[in-house]
Amino acid sequence: MTEHRSDPQLTDAGLLRHFLTIDGLSRQHLTDILNLADSFLNVEDRTIKKVPLLRGKTVATLFFENSTRTRTTFDLASKRLSADLIHININTSSTAKGETLIDTLRNLEAMAVDMFVVRHGASGAAHFIANKVSPGIGIINAGDGCHSHPTQAMLDMYTIRHFKKQFTGLKVAIVGDIMHSRVARSQIHALSCMGVTDLRLVGPQTLLPKKGHLWPATLFTNVEEGITDCDVVILLRLQKERMVAGLIPNEHEYFRYYGMTKERMLHAKPDAILMHPGPINRGVEIDSRVADGKQSVILDQTHYGIAIRMAILSSVMDTQVKTRQSRRIGYEH
Amino acid sequence: MTEHRSDPQLTDAGLLRHFLTIDGLSRQHLTDILNLADSFLNVEDRTIKKVPLLRGKTVATLFFENSTRTRTTFDLASKRLSADLIHININTSSTAKGETLIDTLRNLEAMAVDMFVVRHGASGAAHFIANKVSPGIGIINAGDGCHSHPTQAMLDMYTIRHFKKQFTGLKVAIVGDIMHSRVARSQIHALSCMGVTDLRLVGPQTLLPKKGHLWPATLFTNVEEGITDCDVVILLRLQKERMVAGLIPNEHEYFRYYGMTKERMLHAKPDAILMHPGPINRGVEIDSRVADGKQSVILDQTHYGIAIRMAILSSVMDTQVKTRQSRRIGYEH
Amino acid sequence: MTEHRSDPQLTDAGLLRHFLTIDGLSRQHLTDILNLADSFLNVEDRTIKKVPLLRGKTVATLFFENSTRTRTTFDLASKRLSADLIHININTSSTAKGETLIDTLRNLEAMAVDMFVVRHGASGAAHFIANKVSPGIGIINAGDGCHSHPTQAMLDMYTIRHFKKQFTGLKVAIVGDIMHSRVARSQIHALSCMGVTDLRLVGPQTLLPKKGHLWPATLFTNVEEGITDCDVVILLRLQKERMVAGLIPNEHEYFRYYGMTKERMLHAKPDAILMHPGPINRGVEIDSRVADGKQSVILDQTHYGIAIRMAILSSVMDTQVKTRQSRRIGYEH
Repeated sequence: MTEHRSDPQLTDAGLLRHFLTIDGLSRQHLTDILNLADSFLNVEDRTIKKVPLLRGKTVATLFFENSTRTRTTFDLASKRLSADLIHININTSSTAKGETLIDTLRNLEAMAVDMFVVRHGASGAAHFIANKVSPGIGIINAGDGCHSHPTQAMLDMYTIRHFKKQFTGLKVAIVGDIMHSRVARSQIHALSCMGVTDLRLVGPQTLLPKKGHLWPATLFTNVEEGITDCDVVILLRLQKERMVAGLIPNEHEYFRYYGMTKERMLHAKPDAILMHPGPINRGVEIDSRVADGKQSVILDQTHYGIAIRMAILSSVMDTQVKTRQSRRIGYEH
Repeated sequence: MTEHRSDPQLTDAGLLRHFLTIDGLSRQHLTDILNLADSFLNVEDRTIKKVPLLRGKTVATLFFENSTRTRTTFDLASKRLSADLIHININTSSTAKGETLIDTLRNLEAMAVDMFVVRHGASGAAHFIANKVSPGIGIINAGDGCHSHPTQAMLDMYTIRHFKKQFTGLKVAIVGDIMHSRVARSQIHALSCMGVTDLRLVGPQTLLPKKGHLWPATLFTNVEEGITDCDVVILLRLQKERMVAGLIPNEHEYFRYYGMTKERMLHAKPDAILMHPGPINRGVEIDSRVADGKQSVILDQTHYGIAIRMAILSSVMDTQVKTRQSRRIGYEH
Repeated sequence: MTEHRSDPQLTDAGLLRHFLTIDGLSRQHLTDILNLADSFLNVEDRTIKKVPLLRGKTVATLFFENSTRTRTTFDLASKRLSADLIHININTSSTAKGETLIDTLRNLEAMAVDMFVVRHGASGAAHFIANKVSPGIGIINAGDGCHSHPTQAMLDMYTIRHFKKQFTGLKVAIVGDIMHSRVARSQIHALSCMGVTDLRLVGPQTLLPKKGHLWPATLFTNVEEGITDCDVVILLRLQKERMVAGLIPNEHEYFRYYGMTKERMLHAKPDAILMHPGPINRGVEIDSRVADGKQSVILDQTHYGIAIRMAILSSVMDTQVKTRQSRRIGYEH
């Protein structure tokens, strides 16, 4: 299967050795992860919410950006897989003493860490690390700059499949700051890969892709129009930085034109689901009655996020274990 | 047993589903916890200091106030019960990004956290959370404002029972800033509940309850008089904020009139025990010779604190597991 | 074996009850640790990288100085021995509230912590704590001031033995800020103990020991001369504080005269190994081509560091368990 040869996240046999981006993965890859997550969801219903799949393996979170929520989900996913977990606080680490990122990485490798969960403010950081890491060690992208947040997109796909059963024929709208959102980028790839053909991107002109873009989606600046007849409405979190940068006037104006209210949701299908990656800004991109309403599946997304991350961690580890023919080659002098 | 119906921490059957305050608990409830702690104390003497009671359960500490000591005791208690533990750092969490406390809580629930250990600067915070939390999840109050610190009071009861065998007939004095102390409030409830009738509150007028108070205790401004013939002398930590607020002049003056010295302790019974919730201020509320003397049981309190917290965590979890008929109702759409 | 009687880290029978300094240990002690580390190195090659040796034991890291790397190695070593681990953040702990270090220590003892891993900016801090700690609890020195960093020296000995097979006849140079380095101090003791007789200390006059010193080593200010015919070249990290203090002019000048380049390394033996405790300053004490070159065993040092720390933790725990005749004496009133 030579088509995978140059893909940094797949082995020659097409197995997932890192999880960096949705781009380049097949529908089968995504479906395998969703199905594996199904089996992990049952783990939570057990009296003992643990499986020994990663027992004796070491997972390190390497977060260059703060994100308690995402880190907590990986923390819980690792513990429920029985892994040993270490958190590397980059601000107080050797990197802060002038050590290069690669040196920090090599040292953690030398400590026999099996997998890194990386979050970084720069687009491409996880790919960069995946290219530099020694064979046998898996990299999971937990968000890099404006580029990608693939584990979020996977839990979104899980949520959609759970409530809508299939992707074919679905109408899906993503509403908000599409331009700067790594979540949106990963969702667009994933939805397209799963067979969604009616995808709408909705937001103010300043936050939408430019004309001539190649995204498999239609653009809307009018939110009522954009979500009309949709099965799935996905809101994005509005970042305060966009106001500072002058791309939108202020929170109230944004809410007035794009905030999701009960009235606006009437334009979508009556059984439409409403999603949001969290944390939500009540009264900015979403009205409280919608956030807490019947169509909201926001907490379900969080719920499925643990099982999805368990599925991704264990898939990548599985590939790495299989391909570790001669472990720790770098230390055999 | 309808008398429990409106009590947020008890089920209709009178079982402990949260642990928020001593107020409203019966002597039987307290005695059950003390007896259960007895059995956990033996765990520490084993070669392997662990029991599998909470294996596969997730405990989250949610500390809005720093307290390394209290958090460490819950950390150790959870680990010795084999639970998985996550620490939520509120300062860097989504709550800091503008998410409401309830949204943070709902998200952690959705991650299948089984129990929250909450510390907050506002009185009533743990009750507030207990009222909002989904069925099946237990809340432990690890200190809320000036209101309550019930796990501290329980370890104090354990210590008193250990050294004095029974509560009936005991004379107990609490010395210090009674007015602003959540520890004192919980101790007063617990001592009263356990049958102590001769309870004295000792301190400067500015730090004692006002006239007309309904506490089951006698007030003293003279410390020698207050501790006379006592079996148990409990000191409170003097907070620097009281000096800033002008309620007491300074540390030296406080020590001169209320600091516990060997000479002062002679007023209590010869076999009296001396207690303090820690951390102690040597030379402020306590003289070093007393802190390190034969009557001091301060380190025993710390020691019993782990077993008491194991008892409380496992009692609450036990109730929650029993009452989880349909787990995760909120996620069954 | 009365010769051990006054040694704080050895029992009367010569067993290691703390690990504070290399000074005073015999070649047999060091060799036993190296051999034990051999057996732990295999643990990393297993599918499940864990042994149950410290199951149910509690290890607390007590770091008064930040050091992500050293703390992470002890974290991983403890987890791979199946211990429960707690990190005490001294900045937010009770010590910050005015509690004395000894009170903090006594409280952690009372929580049934079995071992403390201590890092402190003051020389002698680990000894001080070892003198104060209750019987049955082990202290590991993870670096104290300019005094000692014995676990680092042990992993260095492991690395040298691994690559050079024996110590007799080896020529070893340590290059850098000898005067202020706890790493160098511990290495000198360890190398001397293991039988190295040709030991050279190389650096600018301002960073070398003064004339009349009693160290078993020859001093060199010329680096080419100092490393001539060496089997092992150990570089030290250059601390920025030395420049501020005026002991060296600046990084570029240091590199010009002492930075290890490929050309300079030609003065050592062709099969010489190059070591560095990390984190490395590329372009200051070491050129990148040397750091990443064939002679560099810097990452091997990190790698062996986990196994060495597992060996030290389990040796000390083993002694403490043996000598705990009456556990928790302080709490038997």
